[in-house]
Amino acid sequence: MYKINTNYQKLPGSYLFSTIAKKVNAYTAAHPDKQIIRLGIGDVTQPIAPAIIEAMHKAVDEMGRAETFHGYAPDLGYEFLRSAIVEHDYKTRGCDIAADEIFVSDGAKSDSANIQELFAQDNRIAVCDPVYPVYVDSNVMAGRTGTYDPATEMWSDVIYMPCTMENGFVPQLPKETPDLIYLCLPNNPTGTTITKDQLQTWVDYANRVGAVIIYDAAYEAYISEQDVAHSIYECEGAKTCAIELKSFSKNAGFTGVRLGYAVVPKELKCGDVSLHDMWARRHGTKFNGAPYIVQRAGEAVYSEAGRAQLKEQVAYYMENAGAIKNGLKEAGYTVFGGVNAPYIWLKTPENMTSWDFFDYLLENANVVGTPGAGFGPSGEGYFRLTAFGSRENTLAALARIRKL
Amino acid sequence: MYKINTNYQKLPGSYLFSTIAKKVNAYTAAHPDKQIIRLGIGDVTQPIAPAIIEAMHKAVDEMGRAETFHGYAPDLGYEFLRSAIVEHDYKTRGCDIAADEIFVSDGAKSDSANIQELFAQDNRIAVCDPVYPVYVDSNVMAGRTGTYDPATEMWSDVIYMPCTMENGFVPQLPKETPDLIYLCLPNNPTGTTITKDQLQTWVDYANRVGAVIIYDAAYEAYISEQDVAHSIYECEGAKTCAIELKSFSKNAGFTGVRLGYAVVPKELKCGDVSLHDMWARRHGTKFNGAPYIVQRAGEAVYSEAGRAQLKEQVAYYMENAGAIKNGLKEAGYTVFGGVNAPYIWLKTPENMTSWDFFDYLLENANVVGTPGAGFGPSGEGYFRLTAFGSRENTLAALARIRKL
Repeated sequence: MYKINTNYQKLPGSYLFSTIAKKVNAYTAAHPDKQIIRLGIGDVTQPIAPAIIEAMHKAVDEMGRAETFHGYAPDLGYEFLRSAIVEHDYKTRGCDIAADEIFVSDGAKSDSANIQELFAQDNRIAVCDPVYPVYVDSNVMAGRTGTYDPATEMWSDVIYMPCTMENGFVPQLPKETPDLIYLCLPNNPTGTTITKDQLQTWVDYANRVGAVIIYDAAYEAYISEQDVAHSIYECEGAKTCAIELKSFSKNAGFTGVRLGYAVVPKELKCGDVSLHDMWARRHGTKFNGAPYIVQRAGEAVYSEAGRAQLKEQVAYYMENAGAIKNGLKEAGYTVFGGVNAPYIWLKTPENMTSWDFFDYLLENANVVGTPGAGFGPSGEGYFRLTAFGSRENTLAALARIRKL
Repeated sequence: MYKINTNYQKLPGSYLFSTIAKKVNAYTAAHPDKQIIRLGIGDVTQPIAPAIIEAMHKAVDEMGRAETFHGYAPDLGYEFLRSAIVEHDYKTRGCDIAADEIFVSDGAKSDSANIQELFAQDNRIAVCDPVYPVYVDSNVMAGRTGTYDPATEMWSDVIYMPCTMENGFVPQLPKETPDLIYLCLPNNPTGTTITKDQLQTWVDYANRVGAVIIYDAAYEAYISEQDVAHSIYECEGAKTCAIELKSFSKNAGFTGVRLGYAVVPKELKCGDVSLHDMWARRHGTKFNGAPYIVQRAGEAVYSEAGRAQLKEQVAYYMENAGAIKNGLKEAGYTVFGGVNAPYIWLKTPENMTSWDFFDYLLENANVVGTPGAGFGPSGEGYFRLTAFGSRENTLAALARIRKL
């Protein structure tokens, strides 16, 4: 008789955003007349930029003619996309990354969930707390996190690095030595980040203790401050200790288009074993490439017209962020983030739990946000609002919250 | 110091098709004047059908306007696609599958590699031999296959079910009891299949011994014989023991478009634990949906125009299959397949090894095929040609082989 992977049984509840969707659906079913504004899940609302739409139409046409049809893509992704990535995301920042160190994927969520497969089961992970839930959940499924304590909402074998008001949301080097360190910077959900000098400390630490940093740079395009690194490879020594994950979801609105990439430098080795070769093997065996049309869309992100249009899109969302941040401040809320990331992280008023505040906002303002506790125990007492709504909805939601 | 997943080190050589690509690249670099014809990898060559191209253009336009833009897709896939699948792939065949038992994915390769994650590490897998390499390789990476013996090219903990001339390519119930049984029918690479009655035997066996069948139906659209099942759910009792995987790559030419789906029936349970719920959790945590544009393309596969156009495409490839099969027979080769699948499986002449025949064909006819040994030890002495080329290339390759 077959047996299941019992690690799945250890997962408490469902994936955060599925839980939220269920709660919102239940509320709207009971109150069909209410107009809900969703500033919860980090989904974008602006349409795909014209330069990218044009590139996709062209690619669709190519797929319709035998002489320009594209079947299976190269394992790593098309050269045209990998070269554009290297040119614009790395060379311009002085990072020496080669095109064959880029692995094109169907998105950073898949990559951030799959990357743990390269490592031994008894490796210990360290995560910022709060953080994007996929890092921990994918390691739970792999049996790497020990036992769950419902009282503390913590896993026995996970090293938590609290990021709270008290430490300015800057993760501190952990007391126990981790094997894998997940850093999402600028951070989801807090919208805060650290300076390049602070990041260098992490790179030096990882090289010293023999840890790998999984660096999720999904929100890189929103960085506005000069002393913040756009890529971990801006730090010296990062190529021997870091894997970088990038998404096209937030900088180009690809949440429904699906494209991302991982950088696994050839210098990243565990003894003689190249992690680059391992990831290449995984990519070749368990994945079959992102769609040709989508890879052409990715290429257009880096075209002159594409870059100009996306700069405007990012600015649009950051104006939303500024409006929410200032509006909530004026209303007496304590707020963070919104400077280098499109997320506003607020202290819940009157020490409400974050799920209580979720219900309160949903019921009284018909606004959906994300409870901080969903991102880890240190997220309790905080709440995330995203700047990815339309201007109209963002301002309407803000007005409703201020009226409470 | 972090450690790697040492199971990766156990994999011998690289993924089959990567190896072939390297060999072909080396040959063409050395002989730039030679015109290579590729009948190796199962990649299609006919362009995407007009009805699907039209649907993709429409979806691209929707993505370019705020009011019709689509962000994150629902976890399981869009309702419009899941309903079309249920209607055309199941209801018409008398299979009672619900739309929420369909999980839309980026392709059957990913699904067939990922599905093993649901099961315990000490479960034993059984595979047809020869077969699509991903089933075994993904289980090697998960540490489920024991040790590899280079002499026999077999894994100690894998149950091999030889499918050869001697047993008419019909897998026999294994002597040792497996937990997971991978069946790819019609089979890749042999192009042969079994009858519905024979498949019923497997369903009954799996229910009796408590095994799960992973049923890969990627080539279902090529079935021409009446007594062959198009879905395993045509067999009684399959919903309590089988997961079905489907691809859009072969029936609709989506190798570069990327779309597939898995059916995990709600009745499939290990004790109290629903495998449907487990797969839903995996999908929600480690995957973020197939692109909206691609899901609309999938919907068009089932439209009236789409179905008519794809029927012609399948017929085109099957005429290629007939031409190769008859031509090789006339030239004295012993050939199989090509009736319910677009693959021709031939005995190598004069007892050549399959890799020797690969080199021989590449060098003397400049035709690329796939060595049978690459699909498992019982593939030794056989060779696969695909019918997915253009008519012109197919006939030219055939003429070259006949001249040898």
